[in-house]
Amino acid sequence: MGKRFLIVSFGESHGEAVGVVIDGCPAGLRISSQEVEDELKLRRPVDKRISTPRVEEDKVEILSGVFKGYTTGAPIAMIVRNREVDSKPYEEIRDLPRPGHADYTAKVKYGGYNDYRGGGRFSGRITASFVMAGAVAKKLISKTLGTEILAFTSQVGPVKLGEIQVERVRKLRYSNPVRCPDPETADKMVKVIEKAKREGDSVGGIIKCIVLNPPIGLGDPVFDSLESDLSKALFSIPAVKAVEFGSGFKVAEMRGSENNDQFIVEDGKVKTLTNNSGGILGGISNGMPITFAVAVKPTPSIPKPQKTVNLKTLRQEKLVFKGRHDTCIVPRAVPVVEALTAVVLADHSMRSGLIKTVLGGKSERR
Amino acid sequence: MGKRFLIVSFGESHGEAVGVVIDGCPAGLRISSQEVEDELKLRRPVDKRISTPRVEEDKVEILSGVFKGYTTGAPIAMIVRNREVDSKPYEEIRDLPRPGHADYTAKVKYGGYNDYRGGGRFSGRITASFVMAGAVAKKLISKTLGTEILAFTSQVGPVKLGEIQVERVRKLRYSNPVRCPDPETADKMVKVIEKAKREGDSVGGIIKCIVLNPPIGLGDPVFDSLESDLSKALFSIPAVKAVEFGSGFKVAEMRGSENNDQFIVEDGKVKTLTNNSGGILGGISNGMPITFAVAVKPTPSIPKPQKTVNLKTLRQEKLVFKGRHDTCIVPRAVPVVEALTAVVLADHSMRSGLIKTVLGGKSERR
Amino acid sequence: MGKRFLIVSFGESHGEAVGVVIDGCPAGLRISSQEVEDELKLRRPVDKRISTPRVEEDKVEILSGVFKGYTTGAPIAMIVRNREVDSKPYEEIRDLPRPGHADYTAKVKYGGYNDYRGGGRFSGRITASFVMAGAVAKKLISKTLGTEILAFTSQVGPVKLGEIQVERVRKLRYSNPVRCPDPETADKMVKVIEKAKREGDSVGGIIKCIVLNPPIGLGDPVFDSLESDLSKALFSIPAVKAVEFGSGFKVAEMRGSENNDQFIVEDGKVKTLTNNSGGILGGISNGMPITFAVAVKPTPSIPKPQKTVNLKTLRQEKLVFKGRHDTCIVPRAVPVVEALTAVVLADHSMRSGLIKTVLGGKSERR
Amino acid sequence: MGKRFLIVSFGESHGEAVGVVIDGCPAGLRISSQEVEDELKLRRPVDKRISTPRVEEDKVEILSGVFKGYTTGAPIAMIVRNREVDSKPYEEIRDLPRPGHADYTAKVKYGGYNDYRGGGRFSGRITASFVMAGAVAKKLISKTLGTEILAFTSQVGPVKLGEIQVERVRKLRYSNPVRCPDPETADKMVKVIEKAKREGDSVGGIIKCIVLNPPIGLGDPVFDSLESDLSKALFSIPAVKAVEFGSGFKVAEMRGSENNDQFIVEDGKVKTLTNNSGGILGGISNGMPITFAVAVKPTPSIPKPQKTVNLKTLRQEKLVFKGRHDTCIVPRAVPVVEALTAVVLADHSMRSGLIKTVLGGKSERR
Repeated sequence: MGKRFLIVSFGESHGEAVGVVIDGCPAGLRISSQEVEDELKLRRPVDKRISTPRVEEDKVEILSGVFKGYTTGAPIAMIVRNREVDSKPYEEIRDLPRPGHADYTAKVKYGGYNDYRGGGRFSGRITASFVMAGAVAKKLISKTLGTEILAFTSQVGPVKLGEIQVERVRKLRYSNPVRCPDPETADKMVKVIEKAKREGDSVGGIIKCIVLNPPIGLGDPVFDSLESDLSKALFSIPAVKAVEFGSGFKVAEMRGSENNDQFIVEDGKVKTLTNNSGGILGGISNGMPITFAVAVKPTPSIPKPQKTVNLKTLRQEKLVFKGRHDTCIVPRAVPVVEALTAVVLADHSMRSGLIKTVLGGKSERR
Repeated sequence: MGKRFLIVSFGESHGEAVGVVIDGCPAGLRISSQEVEDELKLRRPVDKRISTPRVEEDKVEILSGVFKGYTTGAPIAMIVRNREVDSKPYEEIRDLPRPGHADYTAKVKYGGYNDYRGGGRFSGRITASFVMAGAVAKKLISKTLGTEILAFTSQVGPVKLGEIQVERVRKLRYSNPVRCPDPETADKMVKVIEKAKREGDSVGGIIKCIVLNPPIGLGDPVFDSLESDLSKALFSIPAVKAVEFGSGFKVAEMRGSENNDQFIVEDGKVKTLTNNSGGILGGISNGMPITFAVAVKPTPSIPKPQKTVNLKTLRQEKLVFKGRHDTCIVPRAVPVVEALTAVVLADHSMRSGLIKTVLGGKSERR
Repeated sequence: MGKRFLIVSFGESHGEAVGVVIDGCPAGLRISSQEVEDELKLRRPVDKRISTPRVEEDKVEILSGVFKGYTTGAPIAMIVRNREVDSKPYEEIRDLPRPGHADYTAKVKYGGYNDYRGGGRFSGRITASFVMAGAVAKKLISKTLGTEILAFTSQVGPVKLGEIQVERVRKLRYSNPVRCPDPETADKMVKVIEKAKREGDSVGGIIKCIVLNPPIGLGDPVFDSLESDLSKALFSIPAVKAVEFGSGFKVAEMRGSENNDQFIVEDGKVKTLTNNSGGILGGISNGMPITFAVAVKPTPSIPKPQKTVNLKTLRQEKLVFKGRHDTCIVPRAVPVVEALTAVVLADHSMRSGLIKTVLGGKSERR
Repeated sequence: MGKRFLIVSFGESHGEAVGVVIDGCPAGLRISSQEVEDELKLRRPVDKRISTPRVEEDKVEILSGVFKGYTTGAPIAMIVRNREVDSKPYEEIRDLPRPGHADYTAKVKYGGYNDYRGGGRFSGRITASFVMAGAVAKKLISKTLGTEILAFTSQVGPVKLGEIQVERVRKLRYSNPVRCPDPETADKMVKVIEKAKREGDSVGGIIKCIVLNPPIGLGDPVFDSLESDLSKALFSIPAVKAVEFGSGFKVAEMRGSENNDQFIVEDGKVKTLTNNSGGILGGISNGMPITFAVAVKPTPSIPKPQKTVNLKTLRQEKLVFKGRHDTCIVPRAVPVVEALTAVVLADHSMRSGLIKTVLGGKSERR
């Protein structure tokens, strides 16, 4: 994915490791494995009430591309090893595809050769590779452009977060296990999740994202529009089923006079009165905050019995799956949304020449 | 866009021509410029009540890649000339960006060199190039895989289409100017559009799309998921602000037990009881109909006066724009959605080897 | 081909038109169809003694991407129509592949659907699309970087050009029909070609190319090395069978102490004493002139009778082909080598940020 | 590199590891780390007389994409750790670029952030990643198409190998330290290398490659011709300065009647009497053996004193470098040429549908 800041992801849920190669990161960015691990911690299960007991320690190994603490311009390869995996439940259901999962499509597509343990290549586990790449991309766009990315949980099941100030989002979004910047709403969300858990079920939700201080001019018209590339990235997160920018689906019921963001001058700069466009006009960022929302489906793996088909015998069967799974994956997807957004913005910033292949001369080490 | 069935679009609203090059189309597909023109007709303004009076005759010239009526395997270049353009209104507002339009971002990104006449490269006019490519892609996947694509208007302003049978969609969607397969609802939609027009305003809407008889196994996990590539294509349509697959944003309020599509056997084939996934699991088609919806914003160009900024003087000004524009662009986007869907499916069918580089030996002419 | 300055070629020898789309050309470059035609003239047959009598007028139509004389940043599509084609000789030998030509491989690859008239997609005619793209690329790198590209014929059959000054290359290379900057040697080359023509045969040769004043730092290590991308482009010219940089094949017999270009300081700049590397070290330009040579095979179409196989009957047959062909295609490939070199350099200059997406503010028209 | 069988290389000479990710390898190919290590052994220094004393054990770790001994269709990541590195000599010459090396261009391009130890990203060490990818590609095309790749040293300094039978190449090419299939010539080559070593110098050479039993129809006309893609890959091998197919540079002095490969029928198949085209016509394989040669320059690192420039002071200095280096790198490049050839052929076989995304049903394990 990407053209200038390119990432390649690899790894499976229960395989040896999950990793990423970043090709095209500029030389001269200070980065450490500790910083990458700090980002990975954000997607780790934080609360037994809502998450799987699987412990992911996620020690990052930087295999290449970083020298004396700085990126070199060469490809950066990073991995985390997979630990504490229990593949037994998956061996038992090898021929029984789990509803809502990729088991069936993977088996057909790969002729049965796919690694089915823990969802294999289709597991949420692989988003660790996105977060590793995102850690580098976030730092890159923050240092060079001052751009900041804030994602947060805005809905879990029926519980919706109302209007909220950016300052609170920045400070509070990672302060609770559901990644909702309003503590009261967060509590309600936790309760919804706990209830679903008790009932052997799962819940979905919505993640919102705000990009502050984006450069003007990112995105190319037509096929490489910023919306095109952001949505392509976001739909690569397992369980994301919808993406909308700015007013999104609400535009259907809006009049042009209402939806159009009228231009004003503020502090000598061109801005818009409203931001229904989500900061993107004609596929190109206009300098206003970029805003979007994604819908995350309820975890497909649930303890409740479900109908399935034995793919060997083609007989109807009942599935009772015992693998460990989060009751709600929305909170874990929050840093993943931030990560992929950073990767896309880094890529487009490089494409349009806003970030150069060698960073500024302030480094102590040239 | 694409990897095997690759398309490159070019042209501007008031330039010489709009065109497309298809690189990678298999050899041996029978195609004529007439067939391409027939598809183009579907995106043409059909009714003065809701559309611009601009007449687009759209005579297709196939410049390469077709020989004796069949594709040759070489790149297919096709163009339509731009006629009857009136660029005067655009000269008058050269420094006054229209709210909701790409005028401002384009000027910043291209340093003022962009062709601003009729929106230039950002005009809906360029979707003619998508439709030309789609005409070839549609025929390709229909002939080789029996796959059919049906898009239709499901909402205009507050008027929503209810449940509808596939058979009616197939027959009736192009029978009225709003491309809604239910004539009664279509009438209501027309009225909503007429009212907005009278009021110097515009309206948005929603387009739904169903892909019937898709092959199983299209899409790659992670970055080239079918959802990723379809959404990337759909967001390249000007005015599209949201994309959802299957149950889309509704998954936020669903339980796993409700959203999961349980597997059954029907006619010896594995199917699912419901289709909340929209026919895509793990980013890969599962053989069920692929379903998605896109939100189209209200036409940004409206007769009503709007606030804008003179980009030369940075002074606030009032904009009253006199260019011709559809009051609702939803109907014209319907065939465009079909076209780009066909292009993405053709590309993925070729990637996974379901469509070969030379089509079957039934041709009379080898 | 390319990543930032991307070109897509289309068209066949006897089809409607030959054309190119350039995607990614910066906004603000002044360009006219006349300038492109001037480049095309350089590849036109100039002398009946050595070339085909086919007249190629090559009137360039710019279909998009240029507005008021300047590039807009949008894709630039250009075409030339094919005129005065005589396809009759090709109909006669439809099942008799010409030795040395793509007739056989094309027929197998495209299942017989390929346009076989005049070699179709495999004709030297398609290099007109390279030259059109090259006209833009040449101007781009000349205006922004001061880089100049000089290709010339250095060998035809046994006649070799000796050492020659750059100044003479610049002035004289297009002063004679063989594109050799030494008039005396040029005369000998013409005689070699005339002799071959009289004998119903054809001759090959070598083209050398010097890039003056290239920027330092073009090319990426490993797969996108400058040598990799230049050679990829050069081997897309029909009839090119070998490419070497700097000392090329001679390095096999050189010692390291002899082949290494030792570093010196000249006018405060780092240079090398010799230039055996051809200006490229580790796949990256080092600021010295980039030098390379390509071998062009003798025209495969010759009047002499040759052995071939009837692909329908699989019987051995004798081929006497009557199509019109140059006895030596080396001279016509000279501007093509320049064009593709310019395209690759423009692309790499944009990749490394040396050329921006909007050109300098000197334009009168912003 | 590549479109369907895509490889991404990473790692530096003295970094943590060198590795590769293969994206797009079909599911169902049996592969073990042992097989990959066996290929890596072929590029290991085998003889103190001609090679560096650095010991490369090259234990391969497969991190992903292989499950129960078979490829899964997911990306395959493989690494070898770097061991026994001595970076001291490189610290000493940090500001003294070695002639013939990428030290200077790398420093300029990456602003001094590049990993300069052992040549970093520009080291021959990175070809280990090519060989790992090649091990998979070789097995893939061998099992599915029966295609075999034989590279060998045909020249070292002035010593040239004459005509040789394919059978001997297959059996003897890896039987001696210079990878020359004729033991007598090999001895002479060793002596040339030893002499250069004694004299503090190095020597270059030529590698030839024959691809036996290639499929017909690989390669696309114009930019993705088989020659284009093979040469792009081959020029990514450090030290390669020239590539020629079939008769290569000799075509300059040949007549068309001599160079054209006339068609004949043999065993009911279309073949050519000669193979001057090197098995490629119009950029597409014609079924005859694919033949090409590459020139490898003499190792730039030599004990002899050389002129260089201190990049900090811009003063002229004398360089006496003490790092360990092969006197002749030609032999080590032989398996690298085979590996990259296999990767390109695997990629093109997948592009044209000759190799499917899931391999045949003969696997015991579905």
